[in-house]
Amino acid sequence: MILESVLLCFPMLVGVIYVENNLIQFLGPALGLLALGLPLSCIRAKDKSIFAKEGFVIVALSWIILSLVGAVPFVISGEIPNYVDALFETVSGFTTTGASIMADVEILSKASMFWRLFTHWIGGMGVLVFVLAILPTNSGSMHVFRSESPGPTAQKLVSKLSFTARILYLIYGAMTLIELVFLLFGGLNFYDALLYSFSTAGTGGFSISNQGVTAYNSVYVEMVIAVFMLLFSINFNVYYLILIGQFKKAFKSEELRIYLIIVVVSTLSISLNILSSIGSFGQAVRYAFFQVTSIGSTTGLTSANYDVWPTFSRGVLLLLTVMGACAASTGGGVKVSRLVILVKSAFKDIKRMIYPRSVVSISFENEPVQEDTERGIRTYFIIYVLIVILCAFLLSIDATANAWISGQGFSEIATHLSATLACIGNVGPGIEAVGPTLNYAIYSPFSKILLSFVMLIGRLEIFPMIILFAPRTWKRG
Amino acid sequence: MILESVLLCFPMLVGVIYVENNLIQFLGPALGLLALGLPLSCIRAKDKSIFAKEGFVIVALSWIILSLVGAVPFVISGEIPNYVDALFETVSGFTTTGASIMADVEILSKASMFWRLFTHWIGGMGVLVFVLAILPTNSGSMHVFRSESPGPTAQKLVSKLSFTARILYLIYGAMTLIELVFLLFGGLNFYDALLYSFSTAGTGGFSISNQGVTAYNSVYVEMVIAVFMLLFSINFNVYYLILIGQFKKAFKSEELRIYLIIVVVSTLSISLNILSSIGSFGQAVRYAFFQVTSIGSTTGLTSANYDVWPTFSRGVLLLLTVMGACAASTGGGVKVSRLVILVKSAFKDIKRMIYPRSVVSISFENEPVQEDTERGIRTYFIIYVLIVILCAFLLSIDATANAWISGQGFSEIATHLSATLACIGNVGPGIEAVGPTLNYAIYSPFSKILLSFVMLIGRLEIFPMIILFAPRTWKRG
Repeated sequence: MILESVLLCFPMLVGVIYVENNLIQFLGPALGLLALGLPLSCIRAKDKSIFAKEGFVIVALSWIILSLVGAVPFVISGEIPNYVDALFETVSGFTTTGASIMADVEILSKASMFWRLFTHWIGGMGVLVFVLAILPTNSGSMHVFRSESPGPTAQKLVSKLSFTARILYLIYGAMTLIELVFLLFGGLNFYDALLYSFSTAGTGGFSISNQGVTAYNSVYVEMVIAVFMLLFSINFNVYYLILIGQFKKAFKSEELRIYLIIVVVSTLSISLNILSSIGSFGQAVRYAFFQVTSIGSTTGLTSANYDVWPTFSRGVLLLLTVMGACAASTGGGVKVSRLVILVKSAFKDIKRMIYPRSVVSISFENEPVQEDTERGIRTYFIIYVLIVILCAFLLSIDATANAWISGQGFSEIATHLSATLACIGNVGPGIEAVGPTLNYAIYSPFSKILLSFVMLIGRLEIFPMIILFAPRTWKRG
Repeated sequence: MILESVLLCFPMLVGVIYVENNLIQFLGPALGLLALGLPLSCIRAKDKSIFAKEGFVIVALSWIILSLVGAVPFVISGEIPNYVDALFETVSGFTTTGASIMADVEILSKASMFWRLFTHWIGGMGVLVFVLAILPTNSGSMHVFRSESPGPTAQKLVSKLSFTARILYLIYGAMTLIELVFLLFGGLNFYDALLYSFSTAGTGGFSISNQGVTAYNSVYVEMVIAVFMLLFSINFNVYYLILIGQFKKAFKSEELRIYLIIVVVSTLSISLNILSSIGSFGQAVRYAFFQVTSIGSTTGLTSANYDVWPTFSRGVLLLLTVMGACAASTGGGVKVSRLVILVKSAFKDIKRMIYPRSVVSISFENEPVQEDTERGIRTYFIIYVLIVILCAFLLSIDATANAWISGQGFSEIATHLSATLACIGNVGPGIEAVGPTLNYAIYSPFSKILLSFVMLIGRLEIFPMIILFAPRTWKRG
């Protein structure tokens, strides 16, 4: 059932857009996908029960196939002639990372640009379903939904899923529309407004021009985008609660409060930090707020070259890159809720060390955290750190090897580390050589594929990709 | 009992040395310590049973008092006039970190220099006891000892402890002597040879001249020091096993094998990496082997300015900084055994995710790893990462604030990160502004105290320092 929905949902959506653009570059892959997807959807599995393992594999494969095919239009049109580059750009789009290899994005045709930013919007939608359908048990994010729907859940899974998915899409679509209207008010034409809405809604971060949002030179536009980046990075449960009228419960969300506090504190401290170089406090807040919401929500749009800001500000932005958005939003990163539970769990262990006989339990969102959830989050974090170290290390090997062969290269540890963090956190721009005014074109094809893989790992919350590539998965058990 | 041994053992040792140097700068603090220590040692606690909590607090306090007093001689002599600087240097000594604030170490008198390097040797000894006495249960390092001594352990704790401590000191002392003899053969005078033996034995890293080991311009001396750095960073259980004739078991140690493989692979890859700039392969191996054993053993002596090496080599050295030495050695860092168990534990969780119903257990050194041990190591790693992030962040805040006030400053994220890693791993030198040819004098007093604290956290394996400063510890429970 998941196989059906996941595999068919995307080709159909993609197909609609392809037709909209009436171009061979899109029609070709679309027909190819349909030719592949339709027969597959007709195959009915004998054993209808799906284990977590199969769910993970299906999702991981879907995202990979989606990206592999999604890259084709850029190559056919010749705008990104290298397939690896096109793949990087497409994975970056679908995972709502927004890391680009294009130094000049304005060479793209309107249709290609539309497709490039539309991947963000599809990706954001895909993530919402993914969080709901595949990760409900150990993400710790679906507390509210689960507590809202009483009774045994096993039998009601399908109807519940499609119900919640519909609600989420409704919220997602409505918020995108509202942003579109706000941006139209700001003087943007429909095309620009729609594409920036896509980019914001998926917390993606691709820009449609080389100057990005500064092209409009409008505080209003920047603030609208900043606020919507923030809104799309908040747990969608909050909107659901608002929708059913439970305002009190919505605003009592622990994750929301902590996230907003972090955003406000980060904005103020960066404002003070950059004040001396910017001049006016208002301007400082304008840049700081945009950058904090952009990185905090893991969007990655930029309104200033923050890589020239002082270390403190860059440090805060790097921390926000790691932290990421709230769970069950379109944002990426480790997620606020995970970090909160992680810190609480660490404190719990210290307490237990002081009083070995005491029973300490931790709670989140006013509910006790299950041992399994806690364990899952600790595992997640450990694997996250190990992957970041491994990837940054592989990037440095690759960069060194290329420097050796070509006689030229770049070699900064901070670059490799921030590139890894920006990709696994689905943020996009990092610091130094992958900073806001630069792009990922400096990396070799191997590194680009590695980073694409890391984006997918980050987007699918690590485990599906690992399980897909674990040899054990493919053995008959 | 632990209170007695810990509090009295050090003043007595220190006193002996003080007399040896016949200087008021040492005699003053020594008498002060004796005046404080002797009455305290006469107080007998009513309740003789000591909880883990008290053990942690005693150890943490001892190290702090030891450092506070140990810094006094440098201030009295006027060689390091600033007390915070002297404290940083002394903490760096006792924790066998080897991070220095001195740009010119040759201004020190022979006695002060002796004291500076002797702190390494005391520190190394202190760590061996600490690992045995305080951390036996969750460090996962005392497998061999425990399996070697049959019978119920609770009643035999004291006799077992003093027995193993005596064995360890014997090995430690003998190895220091052997290195001393080897270095004398290399043409060093007795003073130099003794002090470098201290520095190596404690895996410390202070040098007695500004050129460090390169002053002798001798491959032999460098290789002797490199080999002994390696030997002192190996689990002392291995030597114990060799001592009792169980060679087979000693060389079957999983941690030892993995550690040696890492050292060999790192040496070879760095040799290849720096080959083009060094010229001859022999020279490249000479520098690479010395640097790998120095950083891997968390000593921190340098025979070359590795900060000008390519990113790959610096990346490897940074990874070695994090990894650290084997458990139950004088080296610091996360420890090879912890990392191995951590990776195995992560794989176990992934396996469990693929086969939810299967029972997967992990083993280390051919013995199953207890759930408690595994949990302890995971907690350790999570808190380690959180502390590193927090400390690097505080350093960047402090550096930025100082840059603001003084109008000058340095601000590189890689500097702060590597300073934190080098201090928590008790290595010493980092990269960039705290690289091998530079020192920690650039940091503000606040940052120096913070880094001193982080060195102690790293040295005492995190938990004692946290518990000492947890408000909960001091409440009557």
